[in-house]
Amino acid sequence: MNTMQTNVKPVKHFVSLDTLSLEEIMSMIEESLRYKQGDLPPLFDGKTVANLFFENSTRTKNSFQMAERHLNMQEIPFDVTTSSVTKGETLYDTCKTLEAIGVDALVIRHPEAGYYHELVEKLNIPVLNGGDGSGEHPSQSLLDLVTIFEEFGTFQGLNVAICGDLVHSRVARSNASVLKRLGANVVGCSPASWWDDSMGLERKELDDILGECDVIMLLRVQHERHIMGDVFSKEAYHTQFGLTVERVERMKAGAIIMHPAPVNRDVEIAGSLIEHERSRIFPQMKNGVYARMSILNRALGGQQ
Amino acid sequence: MNTMQTNVKPVKHFVSLDTLSLEEIMSMIEESLRYKQGDLPPLFDGKTVANLFFENSTRTKNSFQMAERHLNMQEIPFDVTTSSVTKGETLYDTCKTLEAIGVDALVIRHPEAGYYHELVEKLNIPVLNGGDGSGEHPSQSLLDLVTIFEEFGTFQGLNVAICGDLVHSRVARSNASVLKRLGANVVGCSPASWWDDSMGLERKELDDILGECDVIMLLRVQHERHIMGDVFSKEAYHTQFGLTVERVERMKAGAIIMHPAPVNRDVEIAGSLIEHERSRIFPQMKNGVYARMSILNRALGGQQ
Amino acid sequence: MNTMQTNVKPVKHFVSLDTLSLEEIMSMIEESLRYKQGDLPPLFDGKTVANLFFENSTRTKNSFQMAERHLNMQEIPFDVTTSSVTKGETLYDTCKTLEAIGVDALVIRHPEAGYYHELVEKLNIPVLNGGDGSGEHPSQSLLDLVTIFEEFGTFQGLNVAICGDLVHSRVARSNASVLKRLGANVVGCSPASWWDDSMGLERKELDDILGECDVIMLLRVQHERHIMGDVFSKEAYHTQFGLTVERVERMKAGAIIMHPAPVNRDVEIAGSLIEHERSRIFPQMKNGVYARMSILNRALGGQQ
Repeated sequence: MNTMQTNVKPVKHFVSLDTLSLEEIMSMIEESLRYKQGDLPPLFDGKTVANLFFENSTRTKNSFQMAERHLNMQEIPFDVTTSSVTKGETLYDTCKTLEAIGVDALVIRHPEAGYYHELVEKLNIPVLNGGDGSGEHPSQSLLDLVTIFEEFGTFQGLNVAICGDLVHSRVARSNASVLKRLGANVVGCSPASWWDDSMGLERKELDDILGECDVIMLLRVQHERHIMGDVFSKEAYHTQFGLTVERVERMKAGAIIMHPAPVNRDVEIAGSLIEHERSRIFPQMKNGVYARMSILNRALGGQQ
Repeated sequence: MNTMQTNVKPVKHFVSLDTLSLEEIMSMIEESLRYKQGDLPPLFDGKTVANLFFENSTRTKNSFQMAERHLNMQEIPFDVTTSSVTKGETLYDTCKTLEAIGVDALVIRHPEAGYYHELVEKLNIPVLNGGDGSGEHPSQSLLDLVTIFEEFGTFQGLNVAICGDLVHSRVARSNASVLKRLGANVVGCSPASWWDDSMGLERKELDDILGECDVIMLLRVQHERHIMGDVFSKEAYHTQFGLTVERVERMKAGAIIMHPAPVNRDVEIAGSLIEHERSRIFPQMKNGVYARMSILNRALGGQQ
Repeated sequence: MNTMQTNVKPVKHFVSLDTLSLEEIMSMIEESLRYKQGDLPPLFDGKTVANLFFENSTRTKNSFQMAERHLNMQEIPFDVTTSSVTKGETLYDTCKTLEAIGVDALVIRHPEAGYYHELVEKLNIPVLNGGDGSGEHPSQSLLDLVTIFEEFGTFQGLNVAICGDLVHSRVARSNASVLKRLGANVVGCSPASWWDDSMGLERKELDDILGECDVIMLLRVQHERHIMGDVFSKEAYHTQFGLTVERVERMKAGAIIMHPAPVNRDVEIAGSLIEHERSRIFPQMKNGVYARMSILNRALGGQQ
């Protein structure tokens, strides 16, 4: 009843993979796969969650919603466009309101990088980051890890190429960082104008490394309208940096293709390859549900 | 786990009444009425559905949602305006995404006639057509059939007049077609500019046939703003083609009034007649829930 | 099946506290607190509700939604912007449609004061008023009463000051009226241009009564953009009429601060006081869920 009480145990926010130990990350990957096997019970009957998406989404929002239903949680629908945010209410006051009416967890996507700093300091319910602007997209990173681990059983020594618009991608930076921590060899392939030195990757030509990579991780061209128009045509990008029908033939045996989606067909990847036998694009989405069940389970204190 | 698997049994889409046998249609009508009687159990606990409405709707969307809840299904909320469709994702990729995250059925309303052709060919989950532009609106047709059958116990020899904007109505064509297949005598009443010869109906004046009709099926004037303004005033349309307070007195004993709604009051029908004892307008909506339960039950493979 | 049937027992709408006896109001307050204690069972499994918000809201909508879930009700999602209201359907026809498809109760917020008059006359399902334009906001009033009664155990003789934009507030008028009926002494503090003589309150300066008040009930500055700009700066309003850090020190022992939220930080109240120990702003929101459970319970005929 007192909303200003001191927490006795810390609230388990999920805002960035960088703040989690490798042990915690591995435990969440394994838990995700146990959810996929149907090995873990849906523990959260009567628990409620609100999904606050201040940016558009299909996959992340619907995937969290599916995870919530699998866990028997109830959703309190939150619609940004008809909320009091339109009357100028701050994000903190909005979240505190939801806490006050009894919501047990918040999933938030917001255009501002690091929007969650004030929230994790002051809220008594967990914040699960569904993407923070140009910052991170940790639930996407977790599902990528689940997909790779499910395929190879390890990260140690895997060759991973992250390809495309590195500078605007919130997935690239967190994936590069966590994959290196987990023992993978990570390189980047991108147009010079979209290269980001601060990620600490070696820059390679896709054709030079294609035959050695275990994972080709394509990134969405984010701002094609106002950026790509000046630099590349779609066709030129596809030919030079995309995964073409020709290139897929030169991939290593057992190697897989990943993409966070939505895909620009025939830009990052030939449309005909999206459901190719090497492609894990739709299986990634499927794993996303289990990864988010694990995120919710950790936040709500479920036992494993 | 393999999203490219071959279907072992065919997916039971519901996109048009034209592709269903009369036997199947009669079976769905009877099943709808059994749902109405409370004779069939809600079988789909744990099954999920997404309702993708790319055009506005109250009745169809809320009616499907009520049907889903009656069947114990869970809805994964899909909001077109905040989905990745706004980032240019194709309808197919959006639907495939929902399939990947585990949605068991899709209800779709879309402005493009025949939007579903690619979907029914490639998806492994059923597509239930909630209206395809100027194409069909088969769940509305089914509920109309349920309402007529409930009233008369047969279609054989019934006199049905479909009245109004035939050329822009997605209900008119499918109702005319299925009612004739089921043995009813169907005529049309409409202004010359809204007449559609290709429907194969005889064109009649409403006043000439009013006394013989069992069913007066009114259509919504769809585009009153940009079309009707040039041709008729509301009052002129109502007087010449609408169901007026005066005309209702000349209807045959036992005859009923139908309208898919939303109604333009005092255009297609006098406002005071909407809840007239002959009117089945609100009972149609009620039956719509049971018709959609039957559609969902067939799609999800429930036993009858 | 007949939607035109005469009601055998009256439908229990909830549109204004003015139409409820003090006995009924006290009973709802006590019931709200019993829900808060967990003393009342969730009776409405299988009952459905639609929340029609024609004006923006976070608190009221989400609070009703939480109350509905606590009572095991199912929500039929209604989205104004994609409903047939956009095709010109009337509010009555929209509500009658929802009644026809089987919705058991309607929560409605609408910009038109008294929008509910036609509805309560003709509908066979209860209308729960979530705010009618410049009219009333009775569920907010009820939660305010619950919060005061929970704090003081009585209304008799309490000194309450309602402060701020009285003329544009739909909360002010109903709270003033019901609090006087319940025996409280109510005064108003507001700029001359926002004073409303017809409320029958004595106008006081905040500083003159601050030390005697048990409840300081702040109102949101509703139209700051187009009204306040001409009259006050935010700072000037805060200094003259707001609850400042300095003023809170002069409040009576045991006195509390209330505000319906959303708050304009540092206008009606210093931002740092929102979670002050005297503030009941977030507890009010929490109580709002229980007050709305009581409203739903009464409407759906649950026993106490």
